Parts: sequence; C-alpha cells; structure tokens
Amino acid sequence: MKFKSVKGSRDFLPEEMILRQQVIDKIRFVFETYGFQPLESSAIENWEILSAKGAGGEEILKETYNFEDKAGRKVGLRYDLTVPLARIVASNPSLPLPFKRYQIEKVWRYGDVAKGRLREFLQADIDTVGSENMLADAEIIACTISVFNELGFKKFLVRLNNRKTLSALMKYAGINEDKIIETLRSVDKLDKIGESGVRKELQDKEILEKSIEKILGFIKIKGTPEEVLKQEKEILKDSKDGKEGIDELEQLISYLKTMDVEKKYEINLSLARGLDYYTGPIFEVVAEEGIGSIAGGGRYDKMIGLFLGRNIPATGISFGIERIIEVMKEKKMLKKIKSKNKVFVVAINDDVRKKSLEITQMLRNNKISADFDTRNRKLSRQLEYAGAIGIPYTVIVGQKELSSETVKVRNMETGNETKVKIKNLVNYLSKI
Amino acid sequence: MKFKSVKGSRDFLPEEMILRQQVIDKIRFVFETYGFQPLESSAIENWEILSAKGAGGEEILKETYNFEDKAGRKVGLRYDLTVPLARIVASNPSLPLPFKRYQIEKVWRYGDVAKGRLREFLQADIDTVGSENMLADAEIIACTISVFNELGFKKFLVRLNNRKTLSALMKYAGINEDKIIETLRSVDKLDKIGESGVRKELQDKEILEKSIEKILGFIKIKGTPEEVLKQEKEILKDSKDGKEGIDELEQLISYLKTMDVEKKYEINLSLARGLDYYTGPIFEVVAEEGIGSIAGGGRYDKMIGLFLGRNIPATGISFGIERIIEVMKEKKMLKKIKSKNKVFVVAINDDVRKKSLEITQMLRNNKISADFDTRNRKLSRQLEYAGAIGIPYTVIVGQKELSSETVKVRNMETGNETKVKIKNLVNYLSKI
Repeated sequence: MKFKSVKGSRDFLPEEMILRQQVIDKIRFVFETYGFQPLESSAIENWEILSAKGAGGEEILKETYNFEDKAGRKVGLRYDLTVPLARIVASNPSLPLPFKRYQIEKVWRYGDVAKGRLREFLQADIDTVGSENMLADAEIIACTISVFNELGFKKFLVRLNNRKTLSALMKYAGINEDKIIETLRSVDKLDKIGESGVRKELQDKEILEKSIEKILGFIKIKGTPEEVLKQEKEILKDSKDGKEGIDELEQLISYLKTMDVEKKYEINLSLARGLDYYTGPIFEVVAEEGIGSIAGGGRYDKMIGLFLGRNIPATGISFGIERIIEVMKEKKMLKKIKSKNKVFVVAINDDVRKKSLEITQMLRNNKISADFDTRNRKLSRQLEYAGAIGIPYTVIVGQKELSSETVKVRNMETGNETKVKIKNLVNYLSKI
Repeated sequence: MKFKSVKGSRDFLPEEMILRQQVIDKIRFVFETYGFQPLESSAIENWEILSAKGAGGEEILKETYNFEDKAGRKVGLRYDLTVPLARIVASNPSLPLPFKRYQIEKVWRYGDVAKGRLREFLQADIDTVGSENMLADAEIIACTISVFNELGFKKFLVRLNNRKTLSALMKYAGINEDKIIETLRSVDKLDKIGESGVRKELQDKEILEKSIEKILGFIKIKGTPEEVLKQEKEILKDSKDGKEGIDELEQLISYLKTMDVEKKYEINLSLARGLDYYTGPIFEVVAEEGIGSIAGGGRYDKMIGLFLGRNIPATGISFGIERIIEVMKEKKMLKKIKSKNKVFVVAINDDVRKKSLEITQMLRNNKISADFDTRNRKLSRQLEYAGAIGIPYTVIVGQKELSSETVKVRNMETGNETKVKIKNLVNYLSKI
C-alpha cells in the first residue's frame, strides 16, 4: 500500500503547520483590522452553481473535481472562494450591504502539479459586496499592502489596471472580437517575456502589424500613476469605455493618497488577468522578480447578478497562501519553531516519575504548555526525545533537588541550567 | 437555481463564525497546553487507504464520498482524522515517538441529516502514537476534562470502560461469537433505555435468559471507580482478558489521581462504543441528560500496525465540534458578538468624508479594527448600517468638532457620547 497523500495534496506535519499558522494568523489579523468578517462555506457545491454562467468558466471547470453524491446529485469541490460568496449573497437577501467578508479555506483544482502548485490548496480572500464606489477598491488595495507589510515582504508591488481601458485599447488597436482573449493573453506577458516576446506572440497569432504597434506603444507607457493615466487618457480620449476606466483608476489613486497608503502600487497597462467576470479595476501583487503573482483580484459588478437576477457590485482579492508561504520559507522570513510546547518535564529515575507528573500537570493548570514522557524511558532517552521534538526548556526533576523543593530548568539550546523553587516555577517559566 | 449549500452542509455567516472561532481557539489552546502539536492532512485520500482493513470499517465506507479523479484514481473524502493519522505515521518513519498531534479539520460522511448532524462537519482530535503506557490515556482524559472546563461546561462526565473487560464479560455471560456485536450494541444503550429496555432488546435478539441476567447484573454496578473495579474484578477473576482490562483501568485511575484531575470521570460498565479497532480503554464524554455523546475515543494498539506491518500503540479522542457548538448555543454559553470590528467611522456629511477616511486609516495603522462607509451614504444610513452589522462603537466626524480637533465616540449600545481629541483617539479606543 502507498501511504503518501494523494498526488497534488500534502500533509502538514507540526513543524510546517506552526509556520503556516504564523502566516494565517497575521493575515487574519490584518483582514479583521480592515473590518472584514469571517465566513466559511461548504467544500462541496452543487454542480449547477459551480458551472453557472458567469462563474469560474470553462477552463476552471475542466480542472474541477466533480462526482455524484449517493442521492445522484451532481456536485463538485469548490475551485475558488468567489463563487461560494456569490451564492451566499444570493441566498441571504437580508445581509446588510456592503457585506465585507474574509474566507481562508481550501480549494481544489485538478491542474498540473509543480513546486508551490498543488491540487488542494489554501486560499485567503477578502471581498466587499454591495458598493460600486472606488472607495471599496481602494480599501482592498490598502488592506493588501498592509498584509504584505505585516508578513515582512519588502519588495512587492500592487499592479493596477482596468478591464474597461483594456477593452478600449483593443478597439483602438482594431483587434477583432474573436481575437481579443488571445491578444490580451500575450499582452499580460509583457513583464515576463518583454516587448519583443509579446511582438512575436502577436505576430504568430496573425495580429496586424499596425495593431501590434499601437498595442506595444500603449502598454509600455511607464511612470507614476498620474503620468501613466495622463498619457492613457490622451490615447483613449475618444472611447467611452476608456474614459470610464481611467476615471475609475483616477478615483482609486486619489483615495489611496487620502488614505496615505504606502506607494507600493503602480498602474501597469499590460496587466490583463484571465477571469472573464472582471468589470472594472483589476489588481495583481507581484513579489520580487522570478516569483510572479502572489495575489490577484478585481471588481466584478455583474457576476452576482447572473446568479441573482439583479446586479450587485463587488470587488475583492485572493491571496495565494501556498505561494506566499513557499516564498517566505525560501527567503527565510519565517521563524522556525519546531514545537509550540515550552517545557518538557524530565524524571531522572522511576522514584520521581509521580512527582514529575504532578509538576507537569501544575504547569498545564497554569496555562504553560508542558509535556512529559508517557513511555517511562530513562533520563538520557527523555532528553534525546525532548531535543528531537524541539522543546526549548526542560524541567529536570531529581531526588536531591526535591529534598529542597527545587527543580533544574535547562535551556536546551545553550545547555544552561538554573535551580528554581517549585513554588516559583510557574512564575519563572512565564517570564522566560 | 437553488442557492442553498448542498444538503447536509452549511454556510457559516460572520456571526456564527465568530462563535465557532471562540470555541475552536479555546480547544486549540488547551490541546497545545497539553503538548499536542498541530497537523493537517489532505481532504482527499486514496480509496485504498480509506477502505484498508482495520480502518473505519464497512459501515463508515457506506457513508463515504468516493469518486474517480481525472486520472482514474479511486479516491474519497476522509471520514475521520484517525485514518489519515495512521497513514501519516506509516509514511513518516522518522517521526520521534510518542507523536502527539491535534488536528481540527472537516470530515465528510453521507449519513442521515438531522439537527446538529451534518454531512460536512468539523472534528477535533488529539492522539498519542507510540506509547502503550496508561499514562498516555490518562493524559488524553486530563486534556479532555480541561477542554470542557475551559469551554464552560458544568455537567459533563467522562465515561471509561475497557474493550478487554467487555470481551471478558461476553465470555462470562456465554454469548456466542456471532452475537457479540449486537449484544454490545444493546448493552451500550443502558443509560438511554434503562435496564428493562436492554433486557427487552436482548430477549428480542434471542439471548438466553441466563446470559441476560449475568450481563444486567454486571453492567448495572455503580459506585466510585474503585468500588466498580473491585466488584468487576471479583466477577471476572477467571478471565485473562478481564484481568488485563481491569489492570489497565486501575492504572488509568491511579494516574488521574496523581495528576489531581477533577473527578469528572467514572467507570461505566455498559459503555461499548462502535468502532472495531479499539483494543484497551475506551472513553466517551456526555454532557447533561438528553444531549448524549460529545466526544469519544479509546486505545487502538493494532490499527496502525495493519497499515505498517508492525504494531504501534496509540490512543486518542475525537471531539464532535458541531454538537458541542450546538449545545453551547442552546445553553447560551457563548458570548454573542456580531462583529469583530470595534469602530465604525461615520462622516456627518460629504465635506468630512476625506477626514473620516484618514481617521479610519489612522486607527487601522494602529491595529484598531475600524470600518467606514464605502457607499457615501448619509449620516442616518451610516448609523443604521453600523447598528445592523453590530459594531460596538462609532466615531462621529463633524465639522464643528473638527475645528477643535475632536470627534465624538458613541457607544452604540448605551447611546452615550464622549468628545475625544483626535490625537488621543487611538489611546482612548484601545482602553474601552
């Protein structure tokens, strides 16, 4: 029998889990500071919901786990946290709007497995449902920047663009309706493959040379948000979509300034993002070069409407937790803690086992995490074990010390030992 | 389209999630205090593992979600957290033993849906793998009692019994091998249906009158653990299994005394528990009458061995979180908090919106959870909204107050208002 977990999934042993909890706790804390409230949904969703028009789309459905439950219902495992949110908003008409929620849960996609790309993975989303104002988008961006600051990222950048200006650009460049998706897919690669790479791809896709020039001239505009928007405005001045999109971005930038958000954002005119459901600003967070996207999102004002029959505006972002943790591990941004346990109580021989058990329990009753040997092993093996599971301190219980109501506390890293009166032990351990 | 979650699953809106997090955080805290370390496993497991001999067994497999993944692998959703643990121990031979872990994750069983019985539900397990000593079982019981104390349960009881003494009882009563399971199933109901109920069931199952008398005489023994064990010992004195089981329970009780664990435990000779894999002590926690079991477990020394080829002893308990939360809600043991947000910043008109946004952001930067209106609504609607989402305080920003660099802080419950200097606002809000 093979004991490995299913391909594309992982087990998280304690050492790894302690790292993950550090990351998740920090993210959760920032989300809550920004007023987002916790939500959880079922892992299994009706197929009707997962495959609804306007939901994740064909490409994602190809990667979605689906099956019939025992009553013959067609169901599947959720592939994101946005579709469940849309369903929940649709089924809870009395929710006060705007509804600001976060959700940190697993999603499943049967895609190619690679490093940092699993089939079962954790995602963390924030969304604001029920506000069409750019204030809501600005808040999402501000929260995102706070999250990465709190996690200790230095070099990261939130790229901003707009679905409407992308449409306007396609029109301006004379791209046929049926070639828009593939054209945008190449445009989106500018930062990865450079101008010549995009040119080559567009030529291969038989885009007219004239159109390519217009696109490249446009997407390579760089500068401060104000500078980029100014040039963009000039080029798209005849487009209603273009004007609307630029107006949205101007408002967004102005709110970010009012909020005094650290300037970790830029307008990036080549940012396209795949999902069809975006309708306004789109966002993507990149860490330093070579790592790529670690969060992404945007405004989707029509998606919930497809479920509900009436439009409810929404905007949000999704954090790729697995990717973020991988990066943080590689860059040694996480404190390695092998055990959440503070103390291991060691009995030097059988005569003091009872006493060492009493001391362990006294510590626990005083909210100090403590462990002891449930296998009655000899002293050396107990210390070996405490070392192997990475416990920072041992309390060594011996007859000699007990006669004066003391124990020795050993720092397992330095080997230093201190005699402590048993009655002072809780106090002593609370302070180190 | 139906927007409800799949039958047997639930969405947890913020108000409910905040309650759940209170419970989970407390449980996690106690688990860690007792030295159990976090672990997570994949939701999807190979069918080969789920259906392995010695795992959950036929009855559970009937309720297990199973399907083929896109590569044709037969897989299923985990139905408990014990089988994944056994697999993980088998696949990580270098884990230092004893391995003490907790796991708080969802499991799936396609059973009948009832109040507090879902098909997707959260479970919280602690297990100690690699110690055959009753100290490990005593620690599980001590931790369990601490969990329910920490959660605020008053009337609860840990029932203890032993698989070996149950076997010995069946032999003593002359029950045929093929009738043992159904006999124990009736025995297990003593606390629910009483002596006459058990008698009737056993008669219906065609158990000999002589055997019934022996069983009833045995299982109705009551008293302190010592008293019960003394009588039990007398009755089962000729049985090797009986002696071993009683010896285990005596050790267990003696360790609980050494640990000075609160006397919330009893020996209950009718406790049987369903799962085949238990080999020694078995445990069950009941809250007050009518609620039934809220946690259960026991020692399973042979299960991991069936996976691994060599026996590794293990003991543990599983907490039925959904049941526990239901009970705590019914008994009003949980503090109702509608929002984790402390403050909503209200702008009395458009002229001060920018300032109110600045103030919101200042609070967030100082780690005070704060929200504001992203819809530019008028004052009354902002206050209405803050009330609807249950925020305890509003900061009211108006021109008059701004001219003296102050804002008003309103307690939304009492309606009391206090003028606070903006520069003191963080400090003021941190303290209330």
